[in-house]
Amino acid sequence: MFKKVAIIGVGLIGGSIGLALKKKRLAKEIVGVCRHKTSLARAKRKRAIDNGTLDYKDAVKGADLVILATPVNKIISIGKAIAPLLEPNCLVTDVGSTKEVIAKELEGCIGRRCSFVGSHPMAGSEKRGVAQARAGIFKGALCFVVKTSRTKKSALKRVNRLWRDLGCRVKVLSPQRHDQIVAVISHLPHLAAGQLVNAAKNSLSFAASGFLDSTRIAASDSEIWTDIFLTNKKAIMQVVNNYIRNLKRVSRLIKEEKEGSLRAECKKIKDLRDVLSR
Amino acid sequence: MFKKVAIIGVGLIGGSIGLALKKKRLAKEIVGVCRHKTSLARAKRKRAIDNGTLDYKDAVKGADLVILATPVNKIISIGKAIAPLLEPNCLVTDVGSTKEVIAKELEGCIGRRCSFVGSHPMAGSEKRGVAQARAGIFKGALCFVVKTSRTKKSALKRVNRLWRDLGCRVKVLSPQRHDQIVAVISHLPHLAAGQLVNAAKNSLSFAASGFLDSTRIAASDSEIWTDIFLTNKKAIMQVVNNYIRNLKRVSRLIKEEKEGSLRAECKKIKDLRDVLSR
Repeated sequence: MFKKVAIIGVGLIGGSIGLALKKKRLAKEIVGVCRHKTSLARAKRKRAIDNGTLDYKDAVKGADLVILATPVNKIISIGKAIAPLLEPNCLVTDVGSTKEVIAKELEGCIGRRCSFVGSHPMAGSEKRGVAQARAGIFKGALCFVVKTSRTKKSALKRVNRLWRDLGCRVKVLSPQRHDQIVAVISHLPHLAAGQLVNAAKNSLSFAASGFLDSTRIAASDSEIWTDIFLTNKKAIMQVVNNYIRNLKRVSRLIKEEKEGSLRAECKKIKDLRDVLSR
Repeated sequence: MFKKVAIIGVGLIGGSIGLALKKKRLAKEIVGVCRHKTSLARAKRKRAIDNGTLDYKDAVKGADLVILATPVNKIISIGKAIAPLLEPNCLVTDVGSTKEVIAKELEGCIGRRCSFVGSHPMAGSEKRGVAQARAGIFKGALCFVVKTSRTKKSALKRVNRLWRDLGCRVKVLSPQRHDQIVAVISHLPHLAAGQLVNAAKNSLSFAASGFLDSTRIAASDSEIWTDIFLTNKKAIMQVVNNYIRNLKRVSRLIKEEKEGSLRAECKKIKDLRDVLSR
């Protein structure tokens, strides 16, 4: 159990962490940090936090757990700013969608006196804001936890335990491997869905459930996604280029009416997707 | 009300038409045609049809409405084969996902003695088979009805009425316009989703709800889709090429870290998608 938890950024994920920590009685006090008073009031009313402040420097005083739950960009700048203010042995984690840049920027400055272990719970939706927060979003969800050569064993153990207590399945991996996986599982689908919307911009009134499902993620917050794209450039470039190559390959099968190969391609894809069942 | 309706291909769509026709009391007798006895038995048990046969030539005898509900390829070959056997004034429609090729192939041969008006109800899912059929799938769904210079006014009226009676909103357009619209709303998303699955084939165990939603359509029947791709080649080639051009444009913004333009692009996409709301 933590004495004081500071959640910096009480949106969908930060708010849900607050709610889940309280539900599981894992925190004595939770202090939330938002940019706006109205969000703080909403988070308090929802009981996602006990107290709120607009000043993250206030929030981390006396905290034994700090959770950075803002967009990636802010995670780095706020993480650096709070580093000298943290209590000794404070555990810091984040929920950012890319991990290599964050680990590089924060492990050094926070790790000297305290511990930093990055996380990425694969929960949430295209919606944002504490209004959407629910304690249950972590139940059965996958949470990536990042391990590097600098990671302290005891801190890794505590972060793993935290996410498991909130209901997640935990997968420990390197930041590089994490960023490659989310590039194909999340970032490429987001780019692809966005350009499907763009392609159909004059025909959107004809969209049926298939189009809606396949482009839902394109409604996600545009600021968060700009950050994600820019902080996972290397992995994204690689998967986008492969993706384009494969689209060209399949469209050539259509153009040249290679019925047998096209049928085999469609079958291969269906068999791959059928394994996921939902 | 129709005296005898022949539904050729009693799968998800054909079966749902049968169920909806019966529920709305629009047909005195419904005869279904399948390739396998087991499917016929299933369709009869489900009461999607009154009688079944494996021989479509039998089925169309005495029918005043024939609905071709097989994959596009078969729609054309079966449509040609039944043309000389149809009762005078029989109304024939189909539910194929592409319309230009079908109109070109069937309007002439069926239209001499009877009437052919192509349709495309935008209902259904990635599932197939009569087991998935429901009378309600047409409720509120969009149904494209195709009009060409050869279309008889009275036949168009009857087909429009049929789909409206089943619960659809009807949109009348040319086969060319139809094929362009479905290329961006349906065929490109299917190609794109398929290659997302392909890109992630070694990381599928990490897929969360976003990935599942955006690739659900890739689980659709591979035979049906091979036909769709091959019968809408021209429109698909055009939208795929545009799509690739736009993916390259956005990936260049990421590569060159054009934060402002990338943010504007993400915002533009979100605003477009937000209008669809679901």
